[in-house]
Amino acid sequence: MVFTTPTPSSIQEAYNLITPYVHRTPLLTNRTLNTVASTPQTPDALVGTPFEGSSPAQPKINFFFKCENYQRIGAFKARGAFHALLRLIERVGEEEVKKKGVITHSSGNHAQALALAASTLGVPAYIVMPRISTPSKIAGTQSHGAEVTFSGSTSVEREAVVAEVQARTGAIFVPPYDDFNIICGQGTTGLEMHAQYLDAVKGEPKLSVHNKAGGVGAGLDAVITPVGGGGLNSGVATFFSDKETKVFGAEPNFEGADDCRRGLDAGQRVERVRTLTIADGLRTPVGVLNWEVISDNKKVAGVFSVSEEQIKAAIRLVLERMKVVVEPSAVVGLAVCLYNEEFRRLVEKEAPDGWDIGIVFSGGNTTVEAIGKLFNS
Amino acid sequence: MVFTTPTPSSIQEAYNLITPYVHRTPLLTNRTLNTVASTPQTPDALVGTPFEGSSPAQPKINFFFKCENYQRIGAFKARGAFHALLRLIERVGEEEVKKKGVITHSSGNHAQALALAASTLGVPAYIVMPRISTPSKIAGTQSHGAEVTFSGSTSVEREAVVAEVQARTGAIFVPPYDDFNIICGQGTTGLEMHAQYLDAVKGEPKLSVHNKAGGVGAGLDAVITPVGGGGLNSGVATFFSDKETKVFGAEPNFEGADDCRRGLDAGQRVERVRTLTIADGLRTPVGVLNWEVISDNKKVAGVFSVSEEQIKAAIRLVLERMKVVVEPSAVVGLAVCLYNEEFRRLVEKEAPDGWDIGIVFSGGNTTVEAIGKLFNS
Repeated sequence: MVFTTPTPSSIQEAYNLITPYVHRTPLLTNRTLNTVASTPQTPDALVGTPFEGSSPAQPKINFFFKCENYQRIGAFKARGAFHALLRLIERVGEEEVKKKGVITHSSGNHAQALALAASTLGVPAYIVMPRISTPSKIAGTQSHGAEVTFSGSTSVEREAVVAEVQARTGAIFVPPYDDFNIICGQGTTGLEMHAQYLDAVKGEPKLSVHNKAGGVGAGLDAVITPVGGGGLNSGVATFFSDKETKVFGAEPNFEGADDCRRGLDAGQRVERVRTLTIADGLRTPVGVLNWEVISDNKKVAGVFSVSEEQIKAAIRLVLERMKVVVEPSAVVGLAVCLYNEEFRRLVEKEAPDGWDIGIVFSGGNTTVEAIGKLFNS
Repeated sequence: MVFTTPTPSSIQEAYNLITPYVHRTPLLTNRTLNTVASTPQTPDALVGTPFEGSSPAQPKINFFFKCENYQRIGAFKARGAFHALLRLIERVGEEEVKKKGVITHSSGNHAQALALAASTLGVPAYIVMPRISTPSKIAGTQSHGAEVTFSGSTSVEREAVVAEVQARTGAIFVPPYDDFNIICGQGTTGLEMHAQYLDAVKGEPKLSVHNKAGGVGAGLDAVITPVGGGGLNSGVATFFSDKETKVFGAEPNFEGADDCRRGLDAGQRVERVRTLTIADGLRTPVGVLNWEVISDNKKVAGVFSVSEEQIKAAIRLVLERMKVVVEPSAVVGLAVCLYNEEFRRLVEKEAPDGWDIGIVFSGGNTTVEAIGKLFNS
């Protein structure tokens, strides 16, 4: 490995490697959501916020939704898992990797992603999952032939079980986010969005006439992704770091889940988080390598947070108006654009003519019961 | 009007007329659902059916999903409404139609569709809706500027209110399904499916190598649509009536909602139905002109029905595995392919090498609460 910090070209190389294994997911638009985002919030919505009593912002926003809920295994995590495993085989040799296998701990999408990558490439996979994981995610992981071992929910408990399984099998650990190759894999989401956006606006200059960098060819004005461990956000921010597009992060703020935003305020990474936000993919603190990228303000222009109610309102809009199934973690970026008044003021101020904003819908792994529980309890 | 019974060319003419106003919705495929459909049901699933104790059928099925849930107003009804209104303007004159306006009664998608068509073409719309209609559908109708008047739920009560509003305004009645122009409009769904299927399999002859009519160019083996009033099914069946593709209908069987299937058995249209099936778009009996088409066995090869539980199981698969939001009425065709053993035996017998089946997802107008209520009650 030559680089420790990912670069746009390391993401291009990752893309060349994983293309045969992952879907080029669609970039969708939706007029109704543009209208909602471009309408000021009610004064009531600002009560209890620092903006109470002032006049609500009126940004102009055109959305471009990158639908990683239609990615293999239903989430962007397939990108990083395939990339990490392909690089591991390159480095250690196919025979060795097939003999030892790979291991990870994850309650959700990374587990399924590594299981899929491993079964595709003929490698045994051992996955440590908390006993309380969603049954559908356990079943999904097992359906790809991975051996699932259960653990407690804390990181200490998980890591102890990983060590046990490794002692028995020699399996090589593939981390969920705090890793150069994982970050480069997830960053390919940004690469595809950029190309698809340029395709979409080609011949339709009105869509990007307000683009600061001067119209067609300049790319999206902004991209916003969820931040959990930070693999997706740091990868996407790296890809756009040599372009005009600004990258933002979005987090839930329930029970301190906005560790990244708080860390940026304090000038120091928050190392521990304990939250049961409904955005269950975003309960982890940002990783070390991820933090290095995200805390670089030339790469990430800001991180904003939203409440559980705002996340639910965004899910409702996506399900009912776009007719697209997303998991709660997937909509935090959209919720920021719709309901975070600080972000909305920023858009209004920076771009009187509006912004074309790319939203990453990170995944769609939920169940009808889970949707019901969110809205009927 | 020259024809009383629609023909394939009257559907082509409808298509030419409505193209500027409606979406060309996507035709999606899904490997997981193909696998589910091509796996025999468990012997347990056949207990209590005429097939109990016999060995479950093993049809081979490749699905092509026509996603009218992504149509304007979220349902195929936009096609018929635009077509009927454009023809009305042709026949009566724009000035007259704009002066009098149009009126209909509908609890759901036809209401929104006519409201959209009317507002687009600058015509006043009066919609009579039962008081018990879903609030989101009432709001949707009003959002297009239509004047909504409430009525009781029976057809006598609805029609009385329609007569009142007509006496006041002179508005011209646009029926929801039992109408030549509505049928031709809905039939354009079949026309698009046919063209999109040929595009999709072009250069991939393996997909249709088992096609009875001899491979590429021959079209889908079968198409199955929901049957409520029968506008969609009779329109699609008309379009395919000069092609090799067989057309089937699908209904819920709860509380006698399978009026069309029962009517075919009895050789006579069933005129009254009173059911509260969860497939709320399919609670009406088949219309007279619709029946004329559907009861012609050269046009419709059969109508099959499914239970409420089977509809729910199909919704779960579409939401959780395809990540696509559909309303209950939309999945009855899929449910027939997955769970109706009589239909599955037919496919196995007619096509040992399998069928490419087009499924019309008729609409996606539901709410997160409604989804929750279906699965958490």
